Amino acid sequence: MLTRAIVKQIQQLKHKRYRDEQGLFCVEGVKSIHEGLKSEIKLKHCFVTDESLIKSLKNAQGIIAEPISAADMKKMSHFSTPSAVLGIFEKPKPKPLPENEWIIALDDIQDPGNMGTLMRTLDWFGFKHVLCSLHTVDCYNEKVVQSSMGSFARMNCVYDNLSVALKRLNRPIVGADLNGVSIEHFEVETKGVLVLGNEGHGISDQIASILTQRITIPRAKGSEVESLNAAVSGALIAYTISSRLGFLR
Amino acid sequence: MLTRAIVKQIQQLKHKRYRDEQGLFCVEGVKSIHEGLKSEIKLKHCFVTDESLIKSLKNAQGIIAEPISAADMKKMSHFSTPSAVLGIFEKPKPKPLPENEWIIALDDIQDPGNMGTLMRTLDWFGFKHVLCSLHTVDCYNEKVVQSSMGSFARMNCVYDNLSVALKRLNRPIVGADLNGVSIEHFEVETKGVLVLGNEGHGISDQIASILTQRITIPRAKGSEVESLNAAVSGALIAYTISSRLGFLR
Repeated sequence: MLTRAIVKQIQQLKHKRYRDEQGLFCVEGVKSIHEGLKSEIKLKHCFVTDESLIKSLKNAQGIIAEPISAADMKKMSHFSTPSAVLGIFEKPKPKPLPENEWIIALDDIQDPGNMGTLMRTLDWFGFKHVLCSLHTVDCYNEKVVQSSMGSFARMNCVYDNLSVALKRLNRPIVGADLNGVSIEHFEVETKGVLVLGNEGHGISDQIASILTQRITIPRAKGSEVESLNAAVSGALIAYTISSRLGFLR
Repeated sequence: MLTRAIVKQIQQLKHKRYRDEQGLFCVEGVKSIHEGLKSEIKLKHCFVTDESLIKSLKNAQGIIAEPISAADMKKMSHFSTPSAVLGIFEKPKPKPLPENEWIIALDDIQDPGNMGTLMRTLDWFGFKHVLCSLHTVDCYNEKVVQSSMGSFARMNCVYDNLSVALKRLNRPIVGADLNGVSIEHFEVETKGVLVLGNEGHGISDQIASILTQRITIPRAKGSEVESLNAAVSGALIAYTISSRLGFLR
């Protein structure tokens, strides 16, 4: 039953501090909830304003979606236009980063839309692990979850001191930069880390000093554009790596 | 001088109807205004809350930025966090689409962030002309201008009945689709139109029926992602075309 305590708890989940404290996060929208249910993450509560959705939301974990009023949904939703479903999931424990794969490292990505779009795109190209600097936007932020279009449920995001963690990974560290080797000529190793920098400042000096290679997305002759959007750069390089390694179907 | 009439006029420019009526649009942020000043488009008014910016904003057209209070800027700004500069530019007349180039067609792109990011990315890869369906978001929407990061000032956006205009262009019409030729094997002609579909529904049936080729961004084996973000797809295909045609430096 929707109690006042649950309403308050869900409202609090808008803030990272409470998500961390409670080990929970909020997912809104039918598609995103379905992706959550298909994955390993655990559903705790589910509320709907449209009872016809209840049947499709039944999951193996036995949680049954509860019908509530639009006014209650409005109170709890983290968006100005609430959707018909809101679910609370348990934050999964981050998994150890694999030994022999490519990992994507985010050096202070700030925009939730970029982070969500990156998760969706990396998932598309077969990358499963994201190493995030401690100042990267939280992967359970409601806008990240929303723009990941379900990929939040499949990606493994590990937050750590980026420079320490990168050194520990002991593999080529490739950074996207304006003065590197063109991705058209980038020789992709079988494992490595791709570092994507902050939207405004790029890769921080500390991380730049430990890069083993710099790569660049070439620009058209005569183009006056200064930089690409972070999610777009990430997509172009992820595609390049995945394509060269024969991961694509 | 900042009069009440100007304040009202600028507030109205948040709406497409008034931008069309007045032939004006609003640009906020130092970088965007600078890009506007470097281009052919004409500045009408410029207001700053930081007087030290006035010198750098002087342009050949003789408009001098006027200092105003933060409260007045707040009243006029189209964003919840106003920047230190706001400029009003004249909407340029759309130019005819060229005979012998690639053109990007947008079939009802709705999200301003996607539209702006597309403009920035297309500009990066050397595309200058965008043919927009009549239901595509307005290229002078404040969020489009903002996320284009200055490319609003260089791109030629033409709004038209898409199917009629596409037939008139008389060149290959390539559409991004889930079941086409992989972009890894896409043989790029010297001119053509690339159609990018709506965020939710993809390319409309009417436009799909006149495509001459369908291309697909390949997904990693085993990936469960259903689709890519529209700006990301556009970027990957634009890169492919530009790279195959030798446009990149």
